[in-house]
Amino acid sequence: MGKSSLKETSFAMNMNSVHSRETVCVFGTGDFGRSLGNKMFQCGYSVVFGSRNPELSGLHPKGIEVLSYKEAAQRSDLIIIAIHREHYNFLIELAEELQGKILVDISNNLKINQYPESNAEYLAELVPGAKIVKAFNTISAWALQSGTLDASRQAFVCGDDKESKQRVMDIGRTIGLTPMDQGSLKAAKEIENYPLQLFPMWKFPLYLSAALCVFYFVYCLLREVIYPYIQEEKDNTFFLAISIPNRIFPGLALNLLALVYLPGIIAAILQLYRGTKYSRFPNWLDHWMLCRKQLGLVALAFAFLHVMYTLVIPIRHYVRWKWSSRIINQIKTNKTDPFNTTTAWLSDSYVALGILGFFLFVLLGITSLPSVSNTVNWREFRFVQSKLGYLTLILCTAHTLVFGGKRFLSPSILRWYLPSIYVLSLIIPCTVLVLKFILVMPCFDRPLTRIRQGWERNSKVSKKAQLGSGNNEV
Amino acid sequence: MGKSSLKETSFAMNMNSVHSRETVCVFGTGDFGRSLGNKMFQCGYSVVFGSRNPELSGLHPKGIEVLSYKEAAQRSDLIIIAIHREHYNFLIELAEELQGKILVDISNNLKINQYPESNAEYLAELVPGAKIVKAFNTISAWALQSGTLDASRQAFVCGDDKESKQRVMDIGRTIGLTPMDQGSLKAAKEIENYPLQLFPMWKFPLYLSAALCVFYFVYCLLREVIYPYIQEEKDNTFFLAISIPNRIFPGLALNLLALVYLPGIIAAILQLYRGTKYSRFPNWLDHWMLCRKQLGLVALAFAFLHVMYTLVIPIRHYVRWKWSSRIINQIKTNKTDPFNTTTAWLSDSYVALGILGFFLFVLLGITSLPSVSNTVNWREFRFVQSKLGYLTLILCTAHTLVFGGKRFLSPSILRWYLPSIYVLSLIIPCTVLVLKFILVMPCFDRPLTRIRQGWERNSKVSKKAQLGSGNNEV
Amino acid sequence: MGKSSLKETSFAMNMNSVHSRETVCVFGTGDFGRSLGNKMFQCGYSVVFGSRNPELSGLHPKGIEVLSYKEAAQRSDLIIIAIHREHYNFLIELAEELQGKILVDISNNLKINQYPESNAEYLAELVPGAKIVKAFNTISAWALQSGTLDASRQAFVCGDDKESKQRVMDIGRTIGLTPMDQGSLKAAKEIENYPLQLFPMWKFPLYLSAALCVFYFVYCLLREVIYPYIQEEKDNTFFLAISIPNRIFPGLALNLLALVYLPGIIAAILQLYRGTKYSRFPNWLDHWMLCRKQLGLVALAFAFLHVMYTLVIPIRHYVRWKWSSRIINQIKTNKTDPFNTTTAWLSDSYVALGILGFFLFVLLGITSLPSVSNTVNWREFRFVQSKLGYLTLILCTAHTLVFGGKRFLSPSILRWYLPSIYVLSLIIPCTVLVLKFILVMPCFDRPLTRIRQGWERNSKVSKKAQLGSGNNEV
Repeated sequence: MGKSSLKETSFAMNMNSVHSRETVCVFGTGDFGRSLGNKMFQCGYSVVFGSRNPELSGLHPKGIEVLSYKEAAQRSDLIIIAIHREHYNFLIELAEELQGKILVDISNNLKINQYPESNAEYLAELVPGAKIVKAFNTISAWALQSGTLDASRQAFVCGDDKESKQRVMDIGRTIGLTPMDQGSLKAAKEIENYPLQLFPMWKFPLYLSAALCVFYFVYCLLREVIYPYIQEEKDNTFFLAISIPNRIFPGLALNLLALVYLPGIIAAILQLYRGTKYSRFPNWLDHWMLCRKQLGLVALAFAFLHVMYTLVIPIRHYVRWKWSSRIINQIKTNKTDPFNTTTAWLSDSYVALGILGFFLFVLLGITSLPSVSNTVNWREFRFVQSKLGYLTLILCTAHTLVFGGKRFLSPSILRWYLPSIYVLSLIIPCTVLVLKFILVMPCFDRPLTRIRQGWERNSKVSKKAQLGSGNNEV
Repeated sequence: MGKSSLKETSFAMNMNSVHSRETVCVFGTGDFGRSLGNKMFQCGYSVVFGSRNPELSGLHPKGIEVLSYKEAAQRSDLIIIAIHREHYNFLIELAEELQGKILVDISNNLKINQYPESNAEYLAELVPGAKIVKAFNTISAWALQSGTLDASRQAFVCGDDKESKQRVMDIGRTIGLTPMDQGSLKAAKEIENYPLQLFPMWKFPLYLSAALCVFYFVYCLLREVIYPYIQEEKDNTFFLAISIPNRIFPGLALNLLALVYLPGIIAAILQLYRGTKYSRFPNWLDHWMLCRKQLGLVALAFAFLHVMYTLVIPIRHYVRWKWSSRIINQIKTNKTDPFNTTTAWLSDSYVALGILGFFLFVLLGITSLPSVSNTVNWREFRFVQSKLGYLTLILCTAHTLVFGGKRFLSPSILRWYLPSIYVLSLIIPCTVLVLKFILVMPCFDRPLTRIRQGWERNSKVSKKAQLGSGNNEV
Repeated sequence: MGKSSLKETSFAMNMNSVHSRETVCVFGTGDFGRSLGNKMFQCGYSVVFGSRNPELSGLHPKGIEVLSYKEAAQRSDLIIIAIHREHYNFLIELAEELQGKILVDISNNLKINQYPESNAEYLAELVPGAKIVKAFNTISAWALQSGTLDASRQAFVCGDDKESKQRVMDIGRTIGLTPMDQGSLKAAKEIENYPLQLFPMWKFPLYLSAALCVFYFVYCLLREVIYPYIQEEKDNTFFLAISIPNRIFPGLALNLLALVYLPGIIAAILQLYRGTKYSRFPNWLDHWMLCRKQLGLVALAFAFLHVMYTLVIPIRHYVRWKWSSRIINQIKTNKTDPFNTTTAWLSDSYVALGILGFFLFVLLGITSLPSVSNTVNWREFRFVQSKLGYLTLILCTAHTLVFGGKRFLSPSILRWYLPSIYVLSLIIPCTVLVLKFILVMPCFDRPLTRIRQGWERNSKVSKKAQLGSGNNEV
């Protein structure tokens, strides 16, 4: 949005520029009403407040009048209703004054879907003669007041009357916002729910990763700290800072990445089983599919942490001490470790696989930025998210497998019968990859492709189509 | 796009909200037609399908009727044509029913520029009495069906009749898309080509870097693996995982970055030579200049990989073994390496130059994100991409030069007469920097600036301007 | 902006597509006038130039006519004024020809706010019978000419007449731009100032960090290079490349991050002291608050550099030499350093704190990308920037504190009475954190919250509200 920067910098300059004075009326002298009124006043509008008790309505900048509702309404054909929905009733008495005027509903509720219909639609029912526009409810009074609109300047606007909507959008632009037309008044409910949300699509990914995190942590604590303490009386508590996180994070990253691709596989199996794509998926699967992007980004965050924790390894006091004591030991025992090409191969390969996997992972993350994903078409998006996504999963799984190397089958890695954490981490990714591998085999891929193109196993249309009567439809 | 998140989260909530039922007609019961129809039905529209064989048209949700084309057309003044272009002919017979109605062309072709005119313009010719709107062809049926619109929600819309376009954009908003007005029906061709593209601007950069990559790989294989194997019978194959990529990637990054700035220099030389900026560049130069951004991003990707491969050096088994064997050797021979300030200087400088170069490179990459480059004006963009870009090139070239250090002129680095890969990598960047240095010298910079401001060596206007008759034009 | 990619790729394809020829007139044959005219001609418009001296107006592509102003004006109802504001006077004589026509003002000035009113508003005064649209002044002639619109394609458009604005926006779309409606002609001043800016909000953060940088550099030079040289005759100059920057950068990053949160604390204290939020802050505080985002991003840049400089530590020649000489020394003196769990704890903790702090810092940076911050609502933005921001500050401060560890109180770290640089770096962050800690205590937090909801200590309204007469206003 170029606009943000346009507005940002002009904010300081243009504040007092003289405009031809258009009068706007604001009903209600509460915080947001005042902030909005003052802001419009600063930006060159003539502002009149309407209040129950005009004489009590506090300090206003010179030039702003506070009148009774009735008087104020007569001054302008555009009235901003800065009143809580519960008190809209008084507007019924003003029906005559409000006839044909533009009423801007800026109200918010306390919780999502609090009322059956949106506040703006309720207002439209109460004052049928007026043109209702929903706007400005997504803006914070504090931001308007202080001018620090560093968050989104987007102001969603909707309404059934196009002229009125344009008037309100013009006001929005003048006070430094970026109005976004959301269509008819039906959209008001969404717009009213919008400011109440707190990362709704992130909840499942975050809770899931928190749960997995706790499980992994306890598991590692047992194997890496408590076991050595009990069996060998070694104090490994300092592993809590880096060593243990660096076992938890890669495991989480790999598993969450696999969980991004699992719902697609479940959906494919369901479609193959049902023989149609037109039945709805179960709700849990729908929700899972809707938050795949967020799951992937959480996975990327853990991968990033894993990379950082790995790169600092040589700086750690413990690691330096271990290296020097190994060298000193070699000299004291006069036994030099010979160079082992296989170990060099394994060590270099798992590092290289990890780097390439992380690189593709970062690429996936970048393409999921809204401004980037908006510049690619559907075909390009599918290519990146599906092809590159699976390649990332393959590389990261291979990275973990090679990291395990020869130790997989050795019983020495079991402590209290618990295998290393990376063995556990491989279960889901390997399952996903095996299932995907089965699904891309022609015997499954062909019917699946047909189903996804609209073919149905038990449909007369599809049978007709199979009989070769031609398909002229998109 | 705030909308994406607005829509995303409201998707689950608002799906069944009751709207005043507007009727939309869909011609064709193919996959995309059905998906779109069902989606509109879910979002509160009354939907009627028109079909050749209404009785054969398969299962539809309750409440959706399938009628003959004629009957269906009579039900609504907005008809979505979900039929392939090849079968549009039947619409001629319906001309009477379609008179004055809005026809929405959602068709796609199989390849770019398949027909001389766009499908929508062809439709407009066939049914001259209707108002044609091109829309929804960039949306995937699968995404509409499953509700997982995780790619772009942008739906390009164009058409000559503003009212009709607004109606279609409102439908788009209601079913969760972000309609983007693309102007008149002339834009239909672009909109029809859009979904068929697969990263068109990336092809040249990717093929070029693939070719360079292969060349560098074979070169390094010869020098680093085959030569030692033949001359010293050393098995260096494990270099393939990290050491060799870490010679290929920095070379590629540096050369591709230089190739970003080379076309600008060639253009400047051409302009100086021709004495005007109004002649067109040759096609290859035009295309090269158009994909500079993509070249730069590929270069950044390789630089990122180089950084990662470099940072893992101390973790590699081979490197650890080499360090310890060197220390053990010093002790055994009782000869301690003295500290050499010059080596410390060289080692620290090339690392520091590399970090600063990479930092500026990342900065360039961030400013090329669409949402960031949209917030800067032309002057700021030029400053970043040109000034900072050249600084990056200078730093990265210096990084490579200092890395080479004293070894450049020593013949010991030749193996089979092949110099080290970094020597080759320096050719293009150094050429670019030398040419740029020449071009910024006043004797070349002054005429170039005048040419770029519109001056022409062989033009009477320019001569007039030189004679001081004043220039009142922008 | 999906459009950019839509346009980008279609640029080469569609250049010569045949459109129904609409005639556009361009007054002035200067560089930008010619570039724009030729571009429109290429994109299918019929173009006529108006000039003072039509016969002198240089080479034009075949099919473009150059006429006198009067004749040219008669050819089209849309005239692009490619003339400097100083020469607008001649338009007065053409008043009759221009009556009712659309005049597009594309002029720019040489400095910000050069004239009291915008060029477009001045034009509207001169030719009161015409419909003025401001457009295209933010586009570069060079970009139009060469087709390499790799910077922003956004073209800000404003004007009082909606029809005219639409016409101009359609032309913009046809020549490959993304027109952005900025409302009425009042916005012209902003649009004219826009292309003249060079990162206005970045100036304060960059100057501040440059000043801090110089101070830190001199300080470190004294302590780390000059002191050892004078006291111990040690040549530490090579510290200039990595060691000293790696002391400067973390200090800068931490202090700049703290300075992002300091103005919010000062504002809170001011509001508590004044008992109202409706008084304006002093100008310096306003400006400081407006560039907090930029301050934070500069801090992130330094943090990134610090991370890179830290990760290369084990690759440095000096560090490798120091490690080996320490090991060799241990062997020679036959004294092995015992493993110290406390040191391991301290070393691992400060590294882990640093990584987590950097991770959150990067997260803050990503959410400040325009396209990301546009997808979050105000509540989410506050959560990320305030909660996560303070957590970042706490983690980074703790990282520095633990890094210092036991050395804080030891006098041995003083050189010429100068403490280590990290001690200085802690002053501002610790102050900010202590003040914030005081402000979140209920005795301060409760009145502050009330003030921010609009309550005023000295207002009759607020007193009324306190008396429980109910608050029905938003």
